[in-house]
Amino acid sequence: MHKERIRLARLLDKVMPAEAAAELIRDGMTVGMSGFTRAGDCKAVPEALARRAAKEPLRITLMTGASLGNDTDKILAEANVLARRLPFQVDATLRRKINAGEVMFIDQHLSETVEQLRGQQIAPVDVAVVEAVAITETGGIVPTTSVGNSASFAMLAKQVIVEINLNMPAGLEGLHDIYLPTPRPYRQPIPLIAAEQRIGLPYIPLDPAKIAAIVITQKDDSPSNALPPDQETRQIAGHLNDFLLHEVRAGRLAPSLQPLQAGIGTIANAVLHGLVDSPFRDLKMYSEVLQDSTIELLDAGRLSFASASSVTLTSAVYARFLADLERYKSRVILRPQEISNHPEILRRLGLITINTALECDIYGNVNSTHVGGTHMMNGIGGSGDFARNAHISVFVTKSVAKAGAISSIVPMVSHVDHTEHDVDVIVTEHGLADLRGLAPRERAQQIIANCADPLYRDLLGDYVTRATRRGGHTPHLIEEALAWHARFREEGTMGGTGPILAAA
Amino acid sequence: MHKERIRLARLLDKVMPAEAAAELIRDGMTVGMSGFTRAGDCKAVPEALARRAAKEPLRITLMTGASLGNDTDKILAEANVLARRLPFQVDATLRRKINAGEVMFIDQHLSETVEQLRGQQIAPVDVAVVEAVAITETGGIVPTTSVGNSASFAMLAKQVIVEINLNMPAGLEGLHDIYLPTPRPYRQPIPLIAAEQRIGLPYIPLDPAKIAAIVITQKDDSPSNALPPDQETRQIAGHLNDFLLHEVRAGRLAPSLQPLQAGIGTIANAVLHGLVDSPFRDLKMYSEVLQDSTIELLDAGRLSFASASSVTLTSAVYARFLADLERYKSRVILRPQEISNHPEILRRLGLITINTALECDIYGNVNSTHVGGTHMMNGIGGSGDFARNAHISVFVTKSVAKAGAISSIVPMVSHVDHTEHDVDVIVTEHGLADLRGLAPRERAQQIIANCADPLYRDLLGDYVTRATRRGGHTPHLIEEALAWHARFREEGTMGGTGPILAAA
Repeated sequence: MHKERIRLARLLDKVMPAEAAAELIRDGMTVGMSGFTRAGDCKAVPEALARRAAKEPLRITLMTGASLGNDTDKILAEANVLARRLPFQVDATLRRKINAGEVMFIDQHLSETVEQLRGQQIAPVDVAVVEAVAITETGGIVPTTSVGNSASFAMLAKQVIVEINLNMPAGLEGLHDIYLPTPRPYRQPIPLIAAEQRIGLPYIPLDPAKIAAIVITQKDDSPSNALPPDQETRQIAGHLNDFLLHEVRAGRLAPSLQPLQAGIGTIANAVLHGLVDSPFRDLKMYSEVLQDSTIELLDAGRLSFASASSVTLTSAVYARFLADLERYKSRVILRPQEISNHPEILRRLGLITINTALECDIYGNVNSTHVGGTHMMNGIGGSGDFARNAHISVFVTKSVAKAGAISSIVPMVSHVDHTEHDVDVIVTEHGLADLRGLAPRERAQQIIANCADPLYRDLLGDYVTRATRRGGHTPHLIEEALAWHARFREEGTMGGTGPILAAA
Repeated sequence: MHKERIRLARLLDKVMPAEAAAELIRDGMTVGMSGFTRAGDCKAVPEALARRAAKEPLRITLMTGASLGNDTDKILAEANVLARRLPFQVDATLRRKINAGEVMFIDQHLSETVEQLRGQQIAPVDVAVVEAVAITETGGIVPTTSVGNSASFAMLAKQVIVEINLNMPAGLEGLHDIYLPTPRPYRQPIPLIAAEQRIGLPYIPLDPAKIAAIVITQKDDSPSNALPPDQETRQIAGHLNDFLLHEVRAGRLAPSLQPLQAGIGTIANAVLHGLVDSPFRDLKMYSEVLQDSTIELLDAGRLSFASASSVTLTSAVYARFLADLERYKSRVILRPQEISNHPEILRRLGLITINTALECDIYGNVNSTHVGGTHMMNGIGGSGDFARNAHISVFVTKSVAKAGAISSIVPMVSHVDHTEHDVDVIVTEHGLADLRGLAPRERAQQIIANCADPLYRDLLGDYVTRATRRGGHTPHLIEEALAWHARFREEGTMGGTGPILAAA
């Protein structure tokens, strides 16, 4: 069966077991692997690397599109194969090693990794490992459920290993649009002006001589583990819908809004899901990942087109997507993450972006990555690419975590990923703060009144009142600004009390 | 003489005194004024507004390109005319009012203000006031020494006041290139692919019916107040030159480097000045402001072209520039700040950007705006536009301030304008930290060893050692992270001690 998938016949003799292919990867090398939000990752070569590492020294720098599935980061981390890792991850074992300082993790804007590679500003890729549906007659690689950085990895690497995954339907061919920025100087404008536009090839063009090994696999992507909407995420979706409706009524947005982006994960997925029952029509997505909500919006006729770099679905929705692939293909494009996340395109299109915050502060700065200001959760991912260049940049979060022991609205965030300049709207289950055109002191009033949980509202109000007495464009009690985080570390709670009694 | 400058004859009857023109501006209005880094600001109407405010209620929202000269912000602030001010300022009196909460200041990326105006996300401009060299036969406005946001203000405003400044030589006509992004949806790519390229008109196209008043002025721009290079800024320039030379030798940069951007002010100007004696040739600038150093580099034959949104020179260099305007005009273009700072163009060109930090932390986060984490200095300006999309993003600062009482390298910055993702290189007089491809723990080692002052080096090392014991991708002692700032506030020093004695 795999012979139909390798349409350049002279490459058939490159087919070999994963162990043999993995031999191309030597200790100290930099490896670029496919995979973005658990989709389209290579399944066999990483496992072979982990097995070999038990027998001989093998430490590599691993670059990917974004997160991997199939426990690959776990297996590689446990086998101590990962010396350096970039630009994103979501694995608990790897996270532990990153936070222990055992794996050097470089947390990057997802649009920038290959730009830095091309500029030789980070170590060059020795070997690229790319999952494919097929190899074309000219040696081109047809990706599977993600494009990620695979095109640039393959084109910049000295050698390429292709994993042909027979579990991936051949019908995925035609879903992808591969375009990469032309060289500097005199780089040309990227000709994309609409989410639905094709500007490239349906495969990764490649000198077939660089294909050093082909491995046949039969293994599915790991399904999405996003949780279904709950009461709070439904409330968040409701507030955002109301806001968008208000913008349409005020004439500031058309009923088709602007192209939508939503970050990976439960809350953003739930917020998008909330649009199913909205009055908006002819919506488009220009995002980095398509989740269950995208398919639901397509099926509901709300969404007319979706562009992204990967498709990451729960098992049931994945089956639905694959069963009706031809129909979805006319309304979905997968692109390199450099294009899905490119500042040039994002600013041109003018997106409404919806990303998840770990915590926000009263002035609108957002922490998306560091628990307690120190411990990496996943990484900034594409949130910075999108928030910076958005038409309206929305951040969503539940107002508290750990049953109220943690407030997601704090006096000062313990780590900043997105500054107040890049945050237009904050939404929690309690409400929405529209920060556009407001000075920091005004932002604080909006955020505390509309977004903070009642458990913490008075404490925040008290903080800002006392801080404001000292003056400043952005008032703070600098010796107290991170005290809530310190208290949580010591006592297991930020100290939410609810309304402060006048008598107290 | 002004009749030659107003080439559409029927506009001659719009000429009136500043007081009469200022009457178009009513209490509560939003006004968009020309002016960028003290260049090309209107000189007469703001003063007339201030005088009127002594007699009647007059509070406005004032938008500009960036900072104004001629003490305009001071005069307007003292007269209590400014209710809101955006997107940038540098005036001591206005700063005091902002920090006292008396003026609501909205600190914005300089490329974004007019994007938000077009999207009706901030209050629309009622009246634009634009300084001009001339009005063309079709009613087009020829700007003077800056373009800033003038084109969009004039095109979006309901009414336009033009200040024709007879002190500005008519020969400035032809210096400008006015292009604005086309409307969404289906906005077209901006066709600019090189710093020296002209893509627009030499004037601001405008329906002449919108020109409601013309005021004749004869007053110079305020000259640049950048200080000449000193020993420390020369050392910073030396470290950066060495780094760039190293990049050229390693084959990562051509001898013409990449287009250069440098922020306003003494340090960045001095660093650029340092290139006069460098071996680099055929350099280009794609920046927001041209300072003395630009003229020196042009005169020295190092720089072949310079694109910006304004030209802000000291008096002597300004005279030289104007005296030889025709020659400079073939090598200089002034553009709208939306284009000089546009993410699409910056990412396409791939700049080496040089901006000034107030303070940096050991992980490479940068504070450019807030003294002590609370008090606004000037604003983020274009630094975020440039740093985010740079090929190599450099931040420069002296390692200490106030004779060593303040370390510019701190455990955690008290305010974040640029996150570690957007900072590639940090330079102080002591040395340079190349942070590309490094994880936070590695960044800390580089920054402490190469950039911190010896007075603070051991204290920083001690902090990072103790923090690292607690683990984390970005180790911090959260209860101590801002203690240096708190100590400075209480004791007037961050406590630099020099090497900690082993016996201590």
